[in-house]
Amino acid sequence: MKRTILSAAIALLSGFAIGQAAAAEPIQPIKPPANINLGMVELGKKLYFDPRLSKSGFISCNSCHNLSMGGTDNIPTSIGDKWQQGPINAPTVLNSSLNVAQFWDGRAADLKAQAGGPIANPGEMAFSHTLAINVLESIPGYVREFKQVFGKDKISIEEVTLAIAEFEKTLVTPNSRFDQWLLGKKDALNGDEMAGYKLFKDSGCVACHNGEAVGGNSFQKMGVVEPYKTKATAAGRADVTGKDADRFNFKVPTLRNVEMTYPYFHDGAANTLTEAVDIMGRLQLGKKFTRDENTQVVAFLKTLTGDQPSFALPILPPSTDTTPRPTPFDKK
Amino acid sequence: MKRTILSAAIALLSGFAIGQAAAAEPIQPIKPPANINLGMVELGKKLYFDPRLSKSGFISCNSCHNLSMGGTDNIPTSIGDKWQQGPINAPTVLNSSLNVAQFWDGRAADLKAQAGGPIANPGEMAFSHTLAINVLESIPGYVREFKQVFGKDKISIEEVTLAIAEFEKTLVTPNSRFDQWLLGKKDALNGDEMAGYKLFKDSGCVACHNGEAVGGNSFQKMGVVEPYKTKATAAGRADVTGKDADRFNFKVPTLRNVEMTYPYFHDGAANTLTEAVDIMGRLQLGKKFTRDENTQVVAFLKTLTGDQPSFALPILPPSTDTTPRPTPFDKK
Repeated sequence: MKRTILSAAIALLSGFAIGQAAAAEPIQPIKPPANINLGMVELGKKLYFDPRLSKSGFISCNSCHNLSMGGTDNIPTSIGDKWQQGPINAPTVLNSSLNVAQFWDGRAADLKAQAGGPIANPGEMAFSHTLAINVLESIPGYVREFKQVFGKDKISIEEVTLAIAEFEKTLVTPNSRFDQWLLGKKDALNGDEMAGYKLFKDSGCVACHNGEAVGGNSFQKMGVVEPYKTKATAAGRADVTGKDADRFNFKVPTLRNVEMTYPYFHDGAANTLTEAVDIMGRLQLGKKFTRDENTQVVAFLKTLTGDQPSFALPILPPSTDTTPRPTPFDKK
Repeated sequence: MKRTILSAAIALLSGFAIGQAAAAEPIQPIKPPANINLGMVELGKKLYFDPRLSKSGFISCNSCHNLSMGGTDNIPTSIGDKWQQGPINAPTVLNSSLNVAQFWDGRAADLKAQAGGPIANPGEMAFSHTLAINVLESIPGYVREFKQVFGKDKISIEEVTLAIAEFEKTLVTPNSRFDQWLLGKKDALNGDEMAGYKLFKDSGCVACHNGEAVGGNSFQKMGVVEPYKTKATAAGRADVTGKDADRFNFKVPTLRNVEMTYPYFHDGAANTLTEAVDIMGRLQLGKKFTRDENTQVVAFLKTLTGDQPSFALPILPPSTDTTPRPTPFDKK
């Protein structure tokens, strides 16, 4: 009995110490999502995978934010309707609920505001909100599920984007090895990884890449010490604020699961973490990492890969005779 | 005790009667797959969802044989690399292990022979087998899994297509309401559905649409009584045999899950089951179904939707620094 109390006291004290230690670090462990509406999640999951929200019937949210591949498409810029080349790299949807705002330039305040964008973007899904609603309202399986979740007979883009956003809130990736270390499992990281984390802190990477998402919580200029050369025309935050001072300010991307979200930067120009760490060091911090230092930082970054969202592939309710058919090709 | 024996005897007899009844029907219930190598299935599932088997890094098997949508893409002809328009409707992958051969013209003897086709087809995934193997061999997660499953250090297209085929063998859809009826649940079908099944038999549809897959087991001429008018140039079986007599002979498609596999025919020209049943009746059987008859046949066809394959979305092992990157767009 005494022993049990002692063990409990030790566990409590060490738990306190660990809590303190984690709190002192610039990166915080990912918390599993709370306040989740599961009915809305199931509906949002279907919508996320449904290519009938695109003009062609071929492109869904998951096409460019592929949940088999770190929530992105792993190509420099995305493929849109009729194989149009997107202007910017698709950011990962994983942990995007932790972002200060959505899109590289933060033009959407939250996931709900973001979700409607690609559907109606002529270069992406090339549909319209009205057409998307017409499709959904023609499918009894959807009508019933919307009614169950929202208690309304009519579907509007409000409910569509709310449901997609609710599903996206579940796409967090806790339990990375780094989080295990933060939570007290001191052997979760090896020597190189620990050295990499020390470099990551001491060199100043944490100035922007911090918090739960290791980024995603501020806008920063791409190219502080040296200018960043790119063929991409995106002006970043300035496109939203209209301020010259915001030119080339982009949302700092999350580094969670960064091993899976290649290629890197808003133009997807860096193919490897080695390259990305080298460029970030020189352009943002005026620091040239040695080869060994680079290896260590990369080793640390790979410990940020967490548990990937696991769920059954959704089965979509079939279209009916009255469902408007997609137009993948121009009529000849 | 007596009662138990009696019950058992009755159960046995009625089981026998049901077995007899099902055997007497031209359609047989789908049997769940046997002799499945689960390690190979898991590997094949990843490959099936991996767009890195395409030149662009954007198209996977699941793009056109989408398991959220009845194992097809629900558009008349598929979208290939650079948005090329395919020449023919993507047949469903569901229950395709039951087909006498693969592709509409049967040019692949089995699923393994089929799986390599789209990867190397310039109009589809536009890659090559060699390039696909180069990608897979650069990814340690795949190298390990291939070694575990096949016991070899080298990967070849043989193992890739074997694994994909093994996964595809699991994509059967048992337990449709019609199969429940075949297996003895006499209230599984309502009056219209039963009347539709009787029409389906009495009108001669079962001459070609029979067996476990309700089709898929023979090649038949499209347009027997009246010629079929189409813009599609596919010559069907004649492309394989070189025989003039085989012109416009196509593999009879399975009608399993037909509610989900719209649009219909090899050219995807029929948008609805109503239309497809009408055309089939007139062109193949010289029979004009009345509106009520058509409704009944369609009602019966919708009872062929079975349990859709249910599994967790696979998480793909990430590329490495040495993985050849996809080329979604031509270099400018």
